[in-house]
Amino acid sequence: MGKGITKRSEDYSAWYNELVKQADLAENSPVRGCMVIKPHGYAIWEKMQAVLDQKFKETGHYNAYFPIFIPKSYFSKEASHVEGFAKECAVVTHYRLKNNPQGEGVIVDPEAKLEEELIVRPTSETVIWDSYKNWIQSYRDLPILLNQWANVVRWEMRTRLFLRTAEFLWQEGHTAHATKQEAEEEAIQMMHVYADFVENYMAVPVLRGVKTESERFAGALETYCIEALMQDGKALQAGTSHFLGQNFAKAFDVKFADKNGKLEYVWGTSWGVSTRLMGALIMAHSDDNGLVLPPKLAPTQVVIIPIFRNADELEAIAEVANQLVADLRAQDITVTFDKRDTYKPGWKFAEYEQKGVPVRIAIGPRDLANNQVEVARRDTKEKQAMSLEGLAAAIKILLDDIQQNLLVKALAFRKENTSYVDSYNEFKQVLEEKGGFIYAHWDGSAETEELIKNETKATIRLIPLEEGEPGTCMVTGKPSKQRVVFAKAY
Amino acid sequence: MGKGITKRSEDYSAWYNELVKQADLAENSPVRGCMVIKPHGYAIWEKMQAVLDQKFKETGHYNAYFPIFIPKSYFSKEASHVEGFAKECAVVTHYRLKNNPQGEGVIVDPEAKLEEELIVRPTSETVIWDSYKNWIQSYRDLPILLNQWANVVRWEMRTRLFLRTAEFLWQEGHTAHATKQEAEEEAIQMMHVYADFVENYMAVPVLRGVKTESERFAGALETYCIEALMQDGKALQAGTSHFLGQNFAKAFDVKFADKNGKLEYVWGTSWGVSTRLMGALIMAHSDDNGLVLPPKLAPTQVVIIPIFRNADELEAIAEVANQLVADLRAQDITVTFDKRDTYKPGWKFAEYEQKGVPVRIAIGPRDLANNQVEVARRDTKEKQAMSLEGLAAAIKILLDDIQQNLLVKALAFRKENTSYVDSYNEFKQVLEEKGGFIYAHWDGSAETEELIKNETKATIRLIPLEEGEPGTCMVTGKPSKQRVVFAKAY
Repeated sequence: MGKGITKRSEDYSAWYNELVKQADLAENSPVRGCMVIKPHGYAIWEKMQAVLDQKFKETGHYNAYFPIFIPKSYFSKEASHVEGFAKECAVVTHYRLKNNPQGEGVIVDPEAKLEEELIVRPTSETVIWDSYKNWIQSYRDLPILLNQWANVVRWEMRTRLFLRTAEFLWQEGHTAHATKQEAEEEAIQMMHVYADFVENYMAVPVLRGVKTESERFAGALETYCIEALMQDGKALQAGTSHFLGQNFAKAFDVKFADKNGKLEYVWGTSWGVSTRLMGALIMAHSDDNGLVLPPKLAPTQVVIIPIFRNADELEAIAEVANQLVADLRAQDITVTFDKRDTYKPGWKFAEYEQKGVPVRIAIGPRDLANNQVEVARRDTKEKQAMSLEGLAAAIKILLDDIQQNLLVKALAFRKENTSYVDSYNEFKQVLEEKGGFIYAHWDGSAETEELIKNETKATIRLIPLEEGEPGTCMVTGKPSKQRVVFAKAY
Repeated sequence: MGKGITKRSEDYSAWYNELVKQADLAENSPVRGCMVIKPHGYAIWEKMQAVLDQKFKETGHYNAYFPIFIPKSYFSKEASHVEGFAKECAVVTHYRLKNNPQGEGVIVDPEAKLEEELIVRPTSETVIWDSYKNWIQSYRDLPILLNQWANVVRWEMRTRLFLRTAEFLWQEGHTAHATKQEAEEEAIQMMHVYADFVENYMAVPVLRGVKTESERFAGALETYCIEALMQDGKALQAGTSHFLGQNFAKAFDVKFADKNGKLEYVWGTSWGVSTRLMGALIMAHSDDNGLVLPPKLAPTQVVIIPIFRNADELEAIAEVANQLVADLRAQDITVTFDKRDTYKPGWKFAEYEQKGVPVRIAIGPRDLANNQVEVARRDTKEKQAMSLEGLAAAIKILLDDIQQNLLVKALAFRKENTSYVDSYNEFKQVLEEKGGFIYAHWDGSAETEELIKNETKATIRLIPLEEGEPGTCMVTGKPSKQRVVFAKAY
C-alpha cells in the first residue's frame, strides 16, 4: 500500500490505471501489451472462473483443450474470419535459437524455419472445426458442447490493463448442432448465462441484444452480446455469443448424416468472456479510495484488524478474533485476521480499502470491554458498532446487503445515464454532455452507422432483444423498426 | 467405443497410443507435436489440477499469471538456462498477416517484423524474475510464493501424446526467499507435495531423490525429483522441484535489504508438474482392455447400466436406479445412469471398461426380483451380486478398496522390478532382460554417467535422499558414496 490515487473526476483514465496498480491487480510486462496478473487480481479471476465453469457444466458443456498454434492456411478457409483477425496476430516462423557466431547472446537460427508459419490463436474456431470434422459423422455425434479455458493473443496497438491486452485469458465455447434452431437457442442461452453471471455475481447490470452486421464477430451470422455501463458513461462489451450458421462447417467440410442418412452441414456457435470482465468489475463499482468488490467475488470478504498497544492487549483481542474467524468460516465467509505488528492499524485500513475487502472489523480494548466491535462496509464506508453476540450471522446478512446494494446502485446509475433522443443534434449534445446509453432510431444501414461513428465516435452497442416501437432514423429520416442503443465504448 | 486395442505384451507402445485414442483422452492435432486434449482426458486433468491447487494453497502459495512471450534477450541472461532451452523453442518474429498480392490466401507481412523476437515460454523463470526485481526491495517483501497454471512450448522432435508434446499444460511454482535454508526447504517441501499427490491420488508409488548434475534443470543448483515405474519397466520422471540458489537473482539483479539494511541476492526455487502425469497415470494401471483409473481421479466413479427388453422393464429399473443415484451422490460419489436405448448393454460395458470407470453396476429384471444388482470392479474385473440394502455405503467402501488395491499392486510391481547389482555386466544383463529400477554404485563422475548412458541407454534417475552404504563404482571401481538408481526412461 502506498500513495492515494487520482480522483475519477480529475482524470478517469489515470484513476483506473493507478487503481489497478495500487490494488495489486496487474501490471504491464516487459513484453509490449502483455500483462502480469498479480495474485490479488488472479484470485478474483479464479472466483469468476469457478462460477462460470459451474454454469457451463450445469448447461451440459465439457471442457477440452486445443493447441495454441494454428496453421496459417487455416485462417484463409473462412473468408470473413481471416479478414477480421489477420491484421493482429503473432506469427511463429522459427523453432530454434542458436548462439550468435558474431558475438554475445542468441539469434534465431535461420535454418530452423517452419515450412508453414503458425499463428498464436486469436480465437480457436478454425482449429476446433478442423477437429470436429473427424469427430462428427452422424446425428448421434451431435450436439458437441465444448468449452476451453485458454490464453489468446491479438496484437492490439493500444493496450490497457485487463481492458485490451495483446495476450488475455478467456474461455471460448464451441458447439456443434444438427439443426439451425438448436444452435440459435444455444447462442441465446449462453448470452443469458453470461448476463446472469455479470448481474448476480459482478453486480453489474447489462443490456442484452444483438450486434449490427458491421459489429458482428468475423464469421458469425448473428452476435448476441451483453453491454455494461461504466462510471464515465462509456459502454463496455462484457460478453458475446455467436450463432455461426454453417459457415465454419462449410469452411472445414463438416457434415453429418441425419436419421434418414442424408448428409447436412453442421450448425455452430461460439461464445466467450475474458479477463476484460476484470476491467468491467473494477470500473463499475470502485471509488476514489480504491477497489470496491462485490462480496461474491471478493477473495477475502472480511478482514479483522486488532487495535493494540502491547502484547497483552493483542492476546486478549486475538482470543475473541480467533473465535470470530471460526464462526465466520462456519458461515462460509472468507476472513483474514491481520495481526501483523509490522504495520499500524491506519496503514492496514487504507491497504484493505484500496484492495476492496467488503467488510472490515476493528477490535480494540474498549470494544472488548463493551462486548462489541467496529464494523465498516467498503461500499458506503459506513461504520457501526456491532455486538459480538450473533456477529457472524449479522456479517453474513451484511455481505448480502453489500452485494445487493452494489447492483441497485449500478442500476440507478444506468437509469440516470440512459437517454432517449429523436434528433441527431440532440444525440450529439447528449453524447457530449452526458454520455451513457442513448436509445435512438436508426435506418438499419451500415452507411448511417458508419457516418455516426465517424462524426461522434459513438457505435451501436446493440439492437435490443425486446421488440420496440417503429420510428424514423435520427440522421436520414428513413424508417426504423425500433430504437437501438448507442454509446461510446471501451 | 470401437475396436479392441493391441496387447501390452505384443507392442507396449502401440498399446499406449491406441488406448489414449480409444479411451477418448487425446489425439494429435494438425500442428506438429501439439495435442488436442479431449473431454474425457481433460476431465481427469481437471481433477488433478483441483487437488494440486488445493495442496499449493494449503502450503501458502498464491496463483498469478505471467506473459506467454519472453523477449529473446532474457534467455541469454542466465547462461546455462539458454543452453538448456534455446534449441527447442517457438520464435515469434512478426505480428501481422496480409492478403497474398500474388494470389490466394494470406502471407506474413514483411513490414510487420518485431524489433526483438519473442520466445513462446518453455518455462517462465526469466520473465518472472524480471518482475520480482520490481517487487522485492526488503526482507519484508519475502518470501514470495507464487504458482501459475499455464501452457508452455518446447519444440520436441519426437513427440507422444501426454508424454512428450510440443505444447503442454503444467503448473510452475516460482518462489523467492531471504535465506538459502528457506529456499532449500521449500524445494524439498514441494517434492514431497508432489510425491503425496502421485501416491495418494494417482496410486503410483514414487522414489524421491536428487538429480545428478548433468540431469539438473538448466539454471538450478539442485533438482529434487520423483520417479515412477511404468509397466514396461521404464521410469518416468513425474515431477521436479529446483533449488535455484541465487542464479536467477544474479541474472536479473534481484536484491533485498535484510534487517540490518545490507543488500543480498534473493534465493529462489521453481517446481512443476505437467500433463505428462496423464501419461504416468495411464501407463501405471491400465490393461489390455483399456484405461484403469484410481477412483479419486475418475471423472465418473460409478456407471449404472440397465438391462431391459422393453419400456416397462426400463421403467421398473429406472425407479431403483434413480434412488441409487441419489444415494451415491449423497456419499459424494460421481455416478452416471446410462439409460440410452441407442446402444446395447454389451456395447456400454465395453465402452466404460475402455474409459476406466472404476465400478459398473448392472441391473436387470431378475436382479430387481432378488433385490440385488451386479457390481463389477474395473481393476480386477471381479463381479459380484450385491444387495440393494445399504448399497451406496458398500460402494463407497469398494471405491476406497480399488484406490488402495491399485497402489498396492503398483508397489508390488515396483518391488519385483527393482534390482541391486554390483557389476557392470550384471547391470547390462538385468537392464536388457528385466528393466526396472537398478540400484548400483557409481563413482560420481559425469564421464562414467555418460559412458553408461551411451552404452546402455540407462540414465541415473536419481540419487536417493536416504543415505546409503558406500561401495565401489560398478564401471570404474572407484569409491562410491551410495547406490544410485538407474533405469531406461521416458
